Amino acid sequence: MRDFNETSITDAVLERFANTPDPRLKEIMASLVRHLHDCVREIEPTFEEWMYAIQFLTRTGQISIGGRQEYILLSDTLGVSMLVDAINHRLPKGATETTVLGPFFVADQPIEQQGADIARGAPGQALYVDARFSSMDGKPLKGAVVDVWQSDSEGFYDVQRSDLDSAQLRGRFHTDTEGRVRFWTIMPTAYPIPYDGPVGDMLKATERHPWRPAHLHFMAAAPGHTTLVTHVFVDGDKYLDSDAVFGVKNSLIDAYPEQPASAAPPGGRNLKGSWRRLDYEFRLSP
Amino acid sequence: MRDFNETSITDAVLERFANTPDPRLKEIMASLVRHLHDCVREIEPTFEEWMYAIQFLTRTGQISIGGRQEYILLSDTLGVSMLVDAINHRLPKGATETTVLGPFFVADQPIEQQGADIARGAPGQALYVDARFSSMDGKPLKGAVVDVWQSDSEGFYDVQRSDLDSAQLRGRFHTDTEGRVRFWTIMPTAYPIPYDGPVGDMLKATERHPWRPAHLHFMAAAPGHTTLVTHVFVDGDKYLDSDAVFGVKNSLIDAYPEQPASAAPPGGRNLKGSWRRLDYEFRLSP
Repeated sequence: MRDFNETSITDAVLERFANTPDPRLKEIMASLVRHLHDCVREIEPTFEEWMYAIQFLTRTGQISIGGRQEYILLSDTLGVSMLVDAINHRLPKGATETTVLGPFFVADQPIEQQGADIARGAPGQALYVDARFSSMDGKPLKGAVVDVWQSDSEGFYDVQRSDLDSAQLRGRFHTDTEGRVRFWTIMPTAYPIPYDGPVGDMLKATERHPWRPAHLHFMAAAPGHTTLVTHVFVDGDKYLDSDAVFGVKNSLIDAYPEQPASAAPPGGRNLKGSWRRLDYEFRLSP
Repeated sequence: MRDFNETSITDAVLERFANTPDPRLKEIMASLVRHLHDCVREIEPTFEEWMYAIQFLTRTGQISIGGRQEYILLSDTLGVSMLVDAINHRLPKGATETTVLGPFFVADQPIEQQGADIARGAPGQALYVDARFSSMDGKPLKGAVVDVWQSDSEGFYDVQRSDLDSAQLRGRFHTDTEGRVRFWTIMPTAYPIPYDGPVGDMLKATERHPWRPAHLHFMAAAPGHTTLVTHVFVDGDKYLDSDAVFGVKNSLIDAYPEQPASAAPPGGRNLKGSWRRLDYEFRLSP
């Protein structure tokens, strides 16, 4: 085929993918081509705008080295990550809602003892977490594998700090016979997503801020259940309504209630001031 | 806003771009978000498919170093480049049609004399080109700047050859008082686009070939006229109906008629065998 015009070129490209052996790939390419062409027809980019897009996409790939993944950040800030999350988690009513994994999860952490302090000396207000994991009928999930990770009091994850040579503010636990995981840590803080690359350029040019409201990350895996990836956000955070990655759900917000200095901290811990606690039940769908 | 679902997240993201100061950027981001979300909702990617897309886009950026621009190749092979070309060249009837610039143009070449041989020793069948450039009413465009470039007999451009330290099979001319540019070269050949990167992976997985039919590139700039970027394809090439980048238009195909060894070559050139010639008139729109 030759002599394509602004409309007929779409069928020409679709036709070229007609021999794709994998039916799923064929379906994906067809959808991609149709929506991409529709978008280009609507935007009517100049040659200079097209070249800017080529260079933006190139830079986004080139800055993604080591711990940095700018394409995930782009997906997050365009709401695509949460949309993919929603599509893949059409959960039964009552199941704990999901949110983005984010770029700071680290696999294969060593197992911590119940009651451990994962802050490992990081400064901040002490926080005691008592998390319960259960199936949809409320039955405790014993022996589930639970990962937790969070930012420090300056808004950084351990993997972003070159001065740390071991894990901090992250840990992996097995739930006990009551399906519980208990540990000490510090309060998480709000933090900006990396802002010095192409995604930062986009946020600046569109007058969007890069902040995420404070949260703890939880991932829970139990046999016979869908692995849960979620956060528990801190109520009152000023970025709850404008999370840069669109991750906030009301059911995932908790007050992390303040405990007076006089309240006896679990585990007989000696604390100078007030502390906070999070009691949260997670329900995993089958 | 919180608690977005598969549908409402699109409005949430659009709302976040509402303060974009530049109205054109605001329009572009809105169109992009709507089409991107529609595409994701239609494809319903698994988490693994989403991650493959993230990694494909990252690799496409990372391989684009030096003379290689894989995102242009991706745009070309998805028909986007020709669509952008069509949108930006809604030309009056009679004007020479346009096609893709491609990644092998080199700016600021020195000016050649009329009758020059731009093959500079590259082997291949001799080709004499007599190109006329005129405005829509047929009036010759004198003093127009014309760039020509092409592949060699093995399908490579000079910039792809590490054994060359100067330009070959490319040149820049000024049209004479009759609006003509005449030069010697060799016949161009069909060639595959770079096939060893992510775009090659896509072509292989979808059983598409990477070939472009043989062509000469022309770019012509004249005051008061739209700069023309086009090819002249060689009739009979087996890839005319399946150009990997969708660039072929019937009006841009020429027979490059064979001249018997007995025909006197212009410029008194001494040739052993038969040779070819291209006589082509280009009409530039205002």
